[in-house]
Amino acid sequence: MASKADQTIGASDQNWDQFAPNDTRRRILMEASALFRRHGYRATSTRQIAAAVGIRQPSLFHHFANKQAILEALFSLSLDNAVVVAERTANASGSAAARLHDYLVWDLETLLSLPLSLSELYSSDILRAPELAHWAAKLESLYLALEKLVRQGIEAGEFVATDPVLIRILIANVTIAHIQYADERPDRDPKKLARDGARFVLAGLSNMQSAHLDELISGTRSRTVSGQT
Amino acid sequence: MASKADQTIGASDQNWDQFAPNDTRRRILMEASALFRRHGYRATSTRQIAAAVGIRQPSLFHHFANKQAILEALFSLSLDNAVVVAERTANASGSAAARLHDYLVWDLETLLSLPLSLSELYSSDILRAPELAHWAAKLESLYLALEKLVRQGIEAGEFVATDPVLIRILIANVTIAHIQYADERPDRDPKKLARDGARFVLAGLSNMQSAHLDELISGTRSRTVSGQT
Repeated sequence: MASKADQTIGASDQNWDQFAPNDTRRRILMEASALFRRHGYRATSTRQIAAAVGIRQPSLFHHFANKQAILEALFSLSLDNAVVVAERTANASGSAAARLHDYLVWDLETLLSLPLSLSELYSSDILRAPELAHWAAKLESLYLALEKLVRQGIEAGEFVATDPVLIRILIANVTIAHIQYADERPDRDPKKLARDGARFVLAGLSNMQSAHLDELISGTRSRTVSGQT
Repeated sequence: MASKADQTIGASDQNWDQFAPNDTRRRILMEASALFRRHGYRATSTRQIAAAVGIRQPSLFHHFANKQAILEALFSLSLDNAVVVAERTANASGSAAARLHDYLVWDLETLLSLPLSLSELYSSDILRAPELAHWAAKLESLYLALEKLVRQGIEAGEFVATDPVLIRILIANVTIAHIQYADERPDRDPKKLARDGARFVLAGLSNMQSAHLDELISGTRSRTVSGQT
């Protein structure tokens, strides 16, 4: 069943599933993201990335025009679909708590399943760089969709009455916390982390008794938030 | 009632209360932190800081040897007491949930009451710099104390059984979220933000029903976690 949003997702520039396991581009993205995390984006050179992949620099430039193109591919992989799904979630109907929960499970599982180290992208000040303004704006769109969804939950009395901006910042930082943890412990189960992470946010935000929260969460399997499946 | 820990706190290099309202050092720290947040630490010059304060550079250097000394004073103001209080809290007895709650209320209220913009200190990659290794180690001590406290709560069945490292990363990022929000909205009440922030974390972590959580939280006023009073 291909909805309009599915097609939008399908049209995304970068999708991890498009790479074959030994695709050189895949290996470049993995090694580059690990180096960015370890040394910082600015302190990492394309020479180091090529060496980590085991190729020569000209081969690297055959796949990516420069270091920035690698960084932008990482932003695309981790952000393009999230914006589409968040906006669709905010524009859907039904319980805002259930929708936020399902969005978070989907987003966390998607991010934590990527064999990439994303800490440097989302917990440094890299998005301050003028040449990345496009990605800063994309992240801002995601934040606006989340604020809209949170506002619906507050108006419906499902969430505590707090500034939606504060809640959006909390959600962003809880997501970043999971990215940092997954970078430190890549052996952890993304599905379990995603479920626990979504529950942490919902328990903190919701006005519900925990029995009602459990009921809401157990309904997840019968709902779909993702356009990926 | 001056305990040993109170004396340790009193011995801290930097304490915001030591400054008179028009103290030049106080104004330098306020303006510098705002510039660090807006432009980043590396992109801010001592010339810009002096101009923002309305003094000449030689006067600035009379108070702080260089830009790094200003940054270190900001780390000292926001971190020295937190490490002492976190370690004392982890070594105390009684409910770990109650102790973590009271620590978070104290830490958030202390941080959010400072008229400083602390985002750049804790949500950039600034602590990666070798010359700041001392402060990275200090933050690490704080994290170890929090992990110890969380482990006690898990063993006592008060917290969900998750990796204490993940919970520590979550607590750090929820604290950073509040710092970012307070930098955006400096007019908000630090006391209310601190209470709500501590409740968010405890609700997310705890195995308790919300009625028990309310009971635990309402006991806050009769307990003391701070050596500041």
